[in-house]
Amino acid sequence: MKCPKHVRINEVGPRDGLQNESAWVETEDKITWINMLSQTGLPYIEVTSFVHPKWIPALRDGLKVAKGITRSENTVYAALVPNRIGLERAIEGGINQACVFLSASETHNQKNVNKPIDQTVQQLKQVIAEAKEANLATRAYLSTVFGCPYEQNVPIEQIVRLSEILLEMGVDELSLGDTIGAANPVQVITVLETLLPRFSASQIALHFHDTRGTSLANIIPALDMGITSFDTSSGGLGGCPYAPGSAGNAATEDVIYMLEQMGIDTGTDLNKLLTAAAWIEKKIGKSLPSRNLQAFKTK
Amino acid sequence: MKCPKHVRINEVGPRDGLQNESAWVETEDKITWINMLSQTGLPYIEVTSFVHPKWIPALRDGLKVAKGITRSENTVYAALVPNRIGLERAIEGGINQACVFLSASETHNQKNVNKPIDQTVQQLKQVIAEAKEANLATRAYLSTVFGCPYEQNVPIEQIVRLSEILLEMGVDELSLGDTIGAANPVQVITVLETLLPRFSASQIALHFHDTRGTSLANIIPALDMGITSFDTSSGGLGGCPYAPGSAGNAATEDVIYMLEQMGIDTGTDLNKLLTAAAWIEKKIGKSLPSRNLQAFKTK
Repeated sequence: MKCPKHVRINEVGPRDGLQNESAWVETEDKITWINMLSQTGLPYIEVTSFVHPKWIPALRDGLKVAKGITRSENTVYAALVPNRIGLERAIEGGINQACVFLSASETHNQKNVNKPIDQTVQQLKQVIAEAKEANLATRAYLSTVFGCPYEQNVPIEQIVRLSEILLEMGVDELSLGDTIGAANPVQVITVLETLLPRFSASQIALHFHDTRGTSLANIIPALDMGITSFDTSSGGLGGCPYAPGSAGNAATEDVIYMLEQMGIDTGTDLNKLLTAAAWIEKKIGKSLPSRNLQAFKTK
Repeated sequence: MKCPKHVRINEVGPRDGLQNESAWVETEDKITWINMLSQTGLPYIEVTSFVHPKWIPALRDGLKVAKGITRSENTVYAALVPNRIGLERAIEGGINQACVFLSASETHNQKNVNKPIDQTVQQLKQVIAEAKEANLATRAYLSTVFGCPYEQNVPIEQIVRLSEILLEMGVDELSLGDTIGAANPVQVITVLETLLPRFSASQIALHFHDTRGTSLANIIPALDMGITSFDTSSGGLGGCPYAPGSAGNAATEDVIYMLEQMGIDTGTDLNKLLTAAAWIEKKIGKSLPSRNLQAFKTK
């Protein structure tokens, strides 16, 4: 297989991880944890979401978190912004990168943001344009690419069409999400074989959840096809609040262990990552899914 | 990637799984569980070990288990046998396949069986010859292929030499073990690139542990290189008794979910496998590592 020399790991635990945990983490603890993550060498940390607190109460302290953290000059600090109000708060919080989101399946988008895809696209266009005017880097999430909880398979034509729309808005990166954690390596190959002749591999990140244990396996063919950007969460945080014990995002420590062992540089310190994951695990108050974390704790 | 049409999954949970769990499982419960596994379509179940009970007390009821289970005609029932006495008990128990074991690293072999590798090889030769005389199928485990807890890296020349010795004994299958659960996909490629010009892919099985979360990822390049036999355990049983929370073998349900989603036939029923894993999890009394099991339980 072809292995890249370097891979970029995007830490989404403080946003995608906490958003899906039922536990409330105190603002000062979020800040301490993000500061620990900043010291690991991670190039990207998504620190919060500026979605209305009614929808994601776990992140209702987003502005305090964004203002409270100590920045590392080698790390980009990102946040999820659904609309102009969210963007304003992100800018106020000193966020470097604004992330918008869209579902590839109509039903999921409707349930998620209460709008059809086409209306959402119009709104995101404005947000991206304004983020760029404010000199923020930008990122778009396309969810349910590898399966939708309502529509099951999402047609590849729809993924191509929406990827094109999002990239034409000028986002710096498009993150393709396996929202329900059901993707498999052959499916990853199929999706990338369709997208890569149209878009540059350097524009695409992959965002896997480990719900069915396939997240690391899915990364293997993606590396071989030239993808060098992956989203992960500290400790594998992010299990569904209604599904105790279920896994969340691909665990940062597991992905980084694997990549570094494969001879791929991630620019991070695994021991510091394990220490940060063990710290947030205590605050969450339950065992987190990261395999390396569980092995590390017994040392 | 090249995907085989069919993959053979070797269920080692009742042996390798239970051997590494501190919980005692009652004989009748082991039998019930193995009978449930027999109904899933699994082609191979390693039901117990005939190692001296002093070494593995968790499997001291091996003969009762072997005699008590209800056989499915499509399943091979295997057991670990270290020596002639073990083989006699395996034959008495009606076992179809005798499995011997050897470490690729001298220190691990010495600590495991209290003999140097060369003496162990002489003993295994006799056991294999007698097993074949008794018309049993045979299998050899080569441990610490992907790393040793005492010697770290094991030279590839040593793995080639011992694989040759074991295959020349006439074993039907050689299972290469990642005993400490540290392997990565590039290492799998390196080992197979050395072995496959010398031995047939059909003689080799791979045996991954998920200690660091890489077990499913390791299977991907192996499939691409023509390996079609993998060892797994129900529920991912087999975490080290001294390391609570640590993962065991690659979980049967996770591997089978991934393979079937990739369009690879395993001849098994995932729902029945999940039911069997949920059943043994209750008996063990703690959450097992299988991601699909944890997702299944919340449905």
